[in-house]
Amino acid sequence: MNFQPVLDQINAEMRPLLGAGGAVASYIPALARVPANQFGIALRTRDGVEASAGDAAAPFSIQSISKLFTLTLAMRCMGDALWERIGREPSGNPFNSLVQLENEHGKPRNPFINAGAIAVADRLVSRGHSKPDVLALMTSLCGEPVGVDEEVAASEAATGYRNIALANFMKSFGKIDNAVSEVLDMYFHQCAIRMNCVQLARAACFLCRDGAHPFDGEPEVTTERHTHRINALMLTCGTYDAAGDVAFSIGLPCKSGVGGGIVAVVPDQLTLCVWSPALDATGNSLLGMKALELFVARTGLSIF
Amino acid sequence: MNFQPVLDQINAEMRPLLGAGGAVASYIPALARVPANQFGIALRTRDGVEASAGDAAAPFSIQSISKLFTLTLAMRCMGDALWERIGREPSGNPFNSLVQLENEHGKPRNPFINAGAIAVADRLVSRGHSKPDVLALMTSLCGEPVGVDEEVAASEAATGYRNIALANFMKSFGKIDNAVSEVLDMYFHQCAIRMNCVQLARAACFLCRDGAHPFDGEPEVTTERHTHRINALMLTCGTYDAAGDVAFSIGLPCKSGVGGGIVAVVPDQLTLCVWSPALDATGNSLLGMKALELFVARTGLSIF
Amino acid sequence: MNFQPVLDQINAEMRPLLGAGGAVASYIPALARVPANQFGIALRTRDGVEASAGDAAAPFSIQSISKLFTLTLAMRCMGDALWERIGREPSGNPFNSLVQLENEHGKPRNPFINAGAIAVADRLVSRGHSKPDVLALMTSLCGEPVGVDEEVAASEAATGYRNIALANFMKSFGKIDNAVSEVLDMYFHQCAIRMNCVQLARAACFLCRDGAHPFDGEPEVTTERHTHRINALMLTCGTYDAAGDVAFSIGLPCKSGVGGGIVAVVPDQLTLCVWSPALDATGNSLLGMKALELFVARTGLSIF
Amino acid sequence: MNFQPVLDQINAEMRPLLGAGGAVASYIPALARVPANQFGIALRTRDGVEASAGDAAAPFSIQSISKLFTLTLAMRCMGDALWERIGREPSGNPFNSLVQLENEHGKPRNPFINAGAIAVADRLVSRGHSKPDVLALMTSLCGEPVGVDEEVAASEAATGYRNIALANFMKSFGKIDNAVSEVLDMYFHQCAIRMNCVQLARAACFLCRDGAHPFDGEPEVTTERHTHRINALMLTCGTYDAAGDVAFSIGLPCKSGVGGGIVAVVPDQLTLCVWSPALDATGNSLLGMKALELFVARTGLSIF
Repeated sequence: MNFQPVLDQINAEMRPLLGAGGAVASYIPALARVPANQFGIALRTRDGVEASAGDAAAPFSIQSISKLFTLTLAMRCMGDALWERIGREPSGNPFNSLVQLENEHGKPRNPFINAGAIAVADRLVSRGHSKPDVLALMTSLCGEPVGVDEEVAASEAATGYRNIALANFMKSFGKIDNAVSEVLDMYFHQCAIRMNCVQLARAACFLCRDGAHPFDGEPEVTTERHTHRINALMLTCGTYDAAGDVAFSIGLPCKSGVGGGIVAVVPDQLTLCVWSPALDATGNSLLGMKALELFVARTGLSIF
Repeated sequence: MNFQPVLDQINAEMRPLLGAGGAVASYIPALARVPANQFGIALRTRDGVEASAGDAAAPFSIQSISKLFTLTLAMRCMGDALWERIGREPSGNPFNSLVQLENEHGKPRNPFINAGAIAVADRLVSRGHSKPDVLALMTSLCGEPVGVDEEVAASEAATGYRNIALANFMKSFGKIDNAVSEVLDMYFHQCAIRMNCVQLARAACFLCRDGAHPFDGEPEVTTERHTHRINALMLTCGTYDAAGDVAFSIGLPCKSGVGGGIVAVVPDQLTLCVWSPALDATGNSLLGMKALELFVARTGLSIF
Repeated sequence: MNFQPVLDQINAEMRPLLGAGGAVASYIPALARVPANQFGIALRTRDGVEASAGDAAAPFSIQSISKLFTLTLAMRCMGDALWERIGREPSGNPFNSLVQLENEHGKPRNPFINAGAIAVADRLVSRGHSKPDVLALMTSLCGEPVGVDEEVAASEAATGYRNIALANFMKSFGKIDNAVSEVLDMYFHQCAIRMNCVQLARAACFLCRDGAHPFDGEPEVTTERHTHRINALMLTCGTYDAAGDVAFSIGLPCKSGVGGGIVAVVPDQLTLCVWSPALDATGNSLLGMKALELFVARTGLSIF
Repeated sequence: MNFQPVLDQINAEMRPLLGAGGAVASYIPALARVPANQFGIALRTRDGVEASAGDAAAPFSIQSISKLFTLTLAMRCMGDALWERIGREPSGNPFNSLVQLENEHGKPRNPFINAGAIAVADRLVSRGHSKPDVLALMTSLCGEPVGVDEEVAASEAATGYRNIALANFMKSFGKIDNAVSEVLDMYFHQCAIRMNCVQLARAACFLCRDGAHPFDGEPEVTTERHTHRINALMLTCGTYDAAGDVAFSIGLPCKSGVGGGIVAVVPDQLTLCVWSPALDATGNSLLGMKALELFVARTGLSIF
């Protein structure tokens, strides 16, 4: 299938909608300044064919999409022991909620809510990982150097009171082993990584290759079994409180971030990244979700 | 692929585990009396090939599996208007919880929790449907007469205080249009339908045929689009509070019932029904889930 | 102290505020029809001196104020065994909430929330009490025949879905022993009793007399110990979710009803009843609360 | 009334119960080390008569009892503006819960739960108050120098993850104006103040004197109006989730701390302090509560 015309068509349909709704994340200045009227889309097939359209080369803050990659790292180095500290169920509450954490004694419901990703960072710190390892993984996966927006990282550290609260709350239940400051430093830096759609579609490509590295010849990123499980978690938990609706309407495993990016996987076929900064009420990119709906409608691709 | 040996092997592995754990649903006498040491498995492929093993011909109370079929009916007769009254998100709470209902003003989170299925029954009553319609659908889908266990239905009506509470609570928010007694009569009867694994695998087969009736020549059961959506809801919400874990470990859309049955779908390939009465802590069949894990491990079938 | 001028003055200050805010309870037609521009106030001292002003002789639906009297009956006939089924803590949730009931396995937090009063009615039914007993108690306490507004009782029975839900929910936890319909019949009737301010101030007078009947020579209503405890429950739980604020601003044990009445107690000195149908956002009479604030400011009476 | 024999008798009845139940607070080493087998009781009347028994001269960590005094300071310097940031309702949840804070957008339900007291500390910091001011107030009120247990303060700062979470959570809602570290420094120090029963009964004596300083000739501590309100808050919110039960069983405004102390007020008559380190399941001193029950039974003192 030739995907380039599909992406061009989607880009053409999205352009007139730019600026027509949603709101750019405003909780830190560096994110609030990003112009809303941008849209990019890129994909990479299992066989390495790439296509892209719109602002696919414009870098943005990947934010929660980074949780996909730190989870992959943690599953690789810890196996099933990871799940002693982190659940695998949808949260049923907004993505940064403390209510569920309290009811479940500091064990986050899944690795994609903020509390869960902070717990993953804690596990990685305990296994000797540090900030550069995440960057190194990303660089390896997309075949290009990837950097951190230090202004974003500093802003999140200075104003991320809710995340500081989450980390300390888990610590109060004995569910964080390392110093809260060290764990959050890792977490804030991973969220502040800047990449573009082309790079993210490529970096996530192991998820449609049963764990094989996007580039042939490189060592396996993770196992087939882990890949299935990461895709399952993306489907049930990857888009905050909208996961059920996204599965219903789009039918692909997705992981979104408040920077406006969304990575989607068609298992055994391709990975896709869409980006547009304005978010809907659930915290997912408004046009990004519309673009994914169009993509599955046009291609008939769905896991269901 | 020849599935008969796979099912025989799974049956052989499950037999020694019968009676080793879990507990039969005990909230009504007719369910509590069912002997725990039974296990059945059956499947039907897209092309109509059937295979089965163990107690696949033993009838059991389908309970919540009926929600799959009433949802199909309601989506068919109402389209998207159905979702004005019912959400599509995992509940994040046990399957009969009122907490979420209160927080969301009487709108159930999805059609597979009890509140949601009661709301579906209300919608069906408003559209002129009645108890015989569900039975007629089941009979048509499996090509054999299907009956209701009137003792079970009467027991549920006499002791189903929590469901009566759920229905009245939604009514207090103006979210149930018909008389509570009529809606619950329909709901209690659908839960009391008796079928066996072979019949259920067959009846659900439209879910792996893009909505086409299990038997060629019969009119379409529902559309391809609806089929994808029902499968998506099964994956995110079909196994109560264990949905995330089931997606993670098994990776197939499933709908379970407290009678011990579970229907699973491999889109475009086959439907499967397993049954064993003893339930795990999440209310799903203990051996049924183990059998599904074995099935996907042996066949490599997964949507992820 | 001569209270008549105090009440006259309060009545004079309230008159200009009639109709200026709040809303009459509208969930049943018979309550919604009550003209909002009414205000009455009455008191009776420990020694039997009475005073009143405004619409103190106009009968109204006592609604939740009845909970005070059924609690008194239940404490008298059951003693501490009553508290096995009912808590004594403020609810921290709106007065008809099911959330708390679910978290605490069907045990209502206190006897003044609806669930708690329904549980009290169940206890009374188990002890052989029936509807006429509540009326007989009220008639004895105020020395005049007291009746039930059958239209209100019928309306509540026909539309009280939330209360039906509460009762069935408790029943599902095994916390209601009698048939839900019988218990609710008793509950709906007690709420539909009609009395006026003078009658209610008199009927509650045992609460400022250490349990002695309002009229000398009659047998004790309850013990001094029970009286202290009922007053304590009124203070901590008697005004729904506003109890803390009422204690803070008024400082007297109070029990309010959605009919717009409020009974207040100055231990060892007097009981007071105010009435005005328009309710504030917490479900308490808007002018009733203002009048009580004025009363304590003018008289210096407070338990603190 | 001569209270010395009453206290002696209560002390004699409590001695045999020492060590028979409850558990000393263990969340920081300095508290966990306190021997459980201690009991002290002291009171001071409105007129300055003092009585005491048992370990009434043994200093202990006053912990949450300090909230009484910082609240008094904050009400004095801010008046009603204080209540824009802090509620006056019982919490209905355990004393350090974040659930309620999330539901109410970072506004704590009352000044006696931890979140509320941290919010009070923030208000005091904004008004130019600092740690020495609390100590100075305590010293003035009891007429003796009072100190801070720096080991306790350091332990709380080092391990108080839940309080750090609470403060950051409120900050994320914009409900804390100052740096979290400064606010918590004040809070941890006030909790670490060491006093004995005699000193605390004396220091709280303004609460039974309509706000007048315990020692005649000193300037008023607060107004009569504020005194009534503080007593009301103690009754409805002063003993964590047991407030309703304490009002019911004891009937006096109380404020307890996890160090095992409880201050109680008989308005217009006396203040009382009991202390015994072992706590019951609600976090209140087990023998302290028993002693207060005996005291009201023997003296007949009750606000109800």
